[in-house]
Amino acid sequence: MTITSFQPPQRVLMGPGPSDVSERVLQAMARPTVGHLDPSFIGMMDEVKALLQYVFQTKNELTFAVSAPGSAGMECCFANLVECGDKVIVCQNGVFGGRMKENVERCGATAIMVEDSWGSAVDPQKLEEALKAHPDAGLVAFVHAETSTGAQSDAKTLVELAHKYDCLTIVDAVTSLAGTPLKVDEWDIDAIYSGSQKCLSAPPGLSPVSFSERAAEKIRNRKSRVQSWFLDLNLVMGYWGGEGKRAYHHTAPVNCLYGLHESLVMVQEEGLENSWARHQHNHMALRQGLEQMGIGFLVSEQDRLPQLNTVYIPDGVDDAEVRTRLLTEFDLEIGAGLGGLAGKVWRIGLMGHASNQKNIDYCLNSLKAVL
Amino acid sequence: MTITSFQPPQRVLMGPGPSDVSERVLQAMARPTVGHLDPSFIGMMDEVKALLQYVFQTKNELTFAVSAPGSAGMECCFANLVECGDKVIVCQNGVFGGRMKENVERCGATAIMVEDSWGSAVDPQKLEEALKAHPDAGLVAFVHAETSTGAQSDAKTLVELAHKYDCLTIVDAVTSLAGTPLKVDEWDIDAIYSGSQKCLSAPPGLSPVSFSERAAEKIRNRKSRVQSWFLDLNLVMGYWGGEGKRAYHHTAPVNCLYGLHESLVMVQEEGLENSWARHQHNHMALRQGLEQMGIGFLVSEQDRLPQLNTVYIPDGVDDAEVRTRLLTEFDLEIGAGLGGLAGKVWRIGLMGHASNQKNIDYCLNSLKAVL
Repeated sequence: MTITSFQPPQRVLMGPGPSDVSERVLQAMARPTVGHLDPSFIGMMDEVKALLQYVFQTKNELTFAVSAPGSAGMECCFANLVECGDKVIVCQNGVFGGRMKENVERCGATAIMVEDSWGSAVDPQKLEEALKAHPDAGLVAFVHAETSTGAQSDAKTLVELAHKYDCLTIVDAVTSLAGTPLKVDEWDIDAIYSGSQKCLSAPPGLSPVSFSERAAEKIRNRKSRVQSWFLDLNLVMGYWGGEGKRAYHHTAPVNCLYGLHESLVMVQEEGLENSWARHQHNHMALRQGLEQMGIGFLVSEQDRLPQLNTVYIPDGVDDAEVRTRLLTEFDLEIGAGLGGLAGKVWRIGLMGHASNQKNIDYCLNSLKAVL
Repeated sequence: MTITSFQPPQRVLMGPGPSDVSERVLQAMARPTVGHLDPSFIGMMDEVKALLQYVFQTKNELTFAVSAPGSAGMECCFANLVECGDKVIVCQNGVFGGRMKENVERCGATAIMVEDSWGSAVDPQKLEEALKAHPDAGLVAFVHAETSTGAQSDAKTLVELAHKYDCLTIVDAVTSLAGTPLKVDEWDIDAIYSGSQKCLSAPPGLSPVSFSERAAEKIRNRKSRVQSWFLDLNLVMGYWGGEGKRAYHHTAPVNCLYGLHESLVMVQEEGLENSWARHQHNHMALRQGLEQMGIGFLVSEQDRLPQLNTVYIPDGVDDAEVRTRLLTEFDLEIGAGLGGLAGKVWRIGLMGHASNQKNIDYCLNSLKAVL
């Protein structure tokens, strides 16, 4: 068998991510590879760190991009902050809370689950009840923006509650970062992870993370070694840490970091608040168009994520057929429902570079043509 | 602070990796991002799998690229094949055998170390003694091509010995894959990992791996869960596995895989045996030039890796100053020594796309100018 070069189709990416990547970021990916210890590359890593501090709204020293996708960023937070025998309160209102539970258990710890229905925000009252019932819990984990449902939770309130009961916090911001207000320092979040391929619109493969000094202190004082060598922050800190010192840990994904750097420069050029406002504005425009077509939202208005619109599939419509026709006839990707929502909802992303009026018009017109 | 787009310098990469990436592969990285469940992307993943089977010389069904750098590929092998309480024989003749020990211990297992001096091949006789002394060991791990020293070990013999004593094998082929003969099926290797940024000359960030049916069977029958969710092959198999079935596990690094695909197509075009021969031929040319300058090799002739030439720094020469001048005045990267070899040797790579006569001439002339 002879295999030839791969030429991907040019899609419009309006699913739950990856989102459309701009030509600027794509071109950055193609710049010449340099060594991962090259002074020019180390200077770029310092800039990536500064730009991530900006988009996370934090001064945390331990802010960097894990050299792997968002699920590795999640695992980085849990593997470093959880030890065997710990008790962790996990709020679940979608797929990714379930993955958090998996992570807790694989660290040899116990997950206390606080369940909310898929499509709802996490209920702070339920969290407080769990905190009261489990005074030996040391950590609370929840998803800020549930990619599986499009629901946003009140991260500030949940973190306050956790701290009131002396728990640290791990926050999943995979879909929220740069799309919706997120203030790591002001909200006092201890550990947070995101993905490059959502509202930053870089290609998938990197997971921005940030850890407060409180979290870093806990990691330095662990009783046991972190079970992952690749994700052990005690080692990674030497590579991404301050003072220009770059101890070799692993070979960084050089060209992927070029792409992330460029995408972060673009957020900085636009201004983070302007990016949040654009996502909100475009959400309202899409919403109006969808509602005119009689298509309704899964999530109640106050909890809706502007960057991920989860809508009910109209009665009598064949889910898979519509998505296939959108993809093959219109080169338009929208997302399917996951788990219990499969076949019931679509997830329409307006993330990062893909959040613009042209895409909204194209999506509405294509949907009209197919339905 | 305003940060602007990053324009890396154009280097000649003759260190221990990353190696020079061809314009073809760089341009592939910049192709439009598609969704990780897009049928076109899934077709490309099937091709990556077929091409990796070719370069690994295997029919192993479980052959794919871990979505992270080589150290995660290493961890993927250990985390899946080692359980708490196991005993693993690790042959160490450089930095990466030490990292294997770290991995074994973080799985809660015991590492029995078989030590050879840095720069030597692994001694099969010492391995056999360890196998006899530890009949309860279930696994042997060693490095085929030690990136820290440039020494190559006799993988075929070491695997035969391990099997004679009923042990499975994990082989580090980060630097050997596509640069020097490596035959996974013929040598009966059970688990193997490599990196994208060495003799394949794709950008760093992916780790090709392959597992025999015997290894897959062991993973399916584990007593305990794999401690890493991200690297759990029982989950990943559903994503990369056969029959076109692609269960969502994590978001694949789409554009990085474009780059790896293109680099593999280039190996296929050249022919794997031709690639091995080119690496050997260019090694001989570099060697002749270096020896004419009075520069000698760390590794004895029969164990030398053609793609990574580790040579003694001439007496009275300032290591750091020479490497800095090569980088700043000639845009030429060569590698420093690691661990006990720091300050004593240089590591000159002739890997993949970087293994050509032009680079050899440039390296020799630049070194002459600086020394």
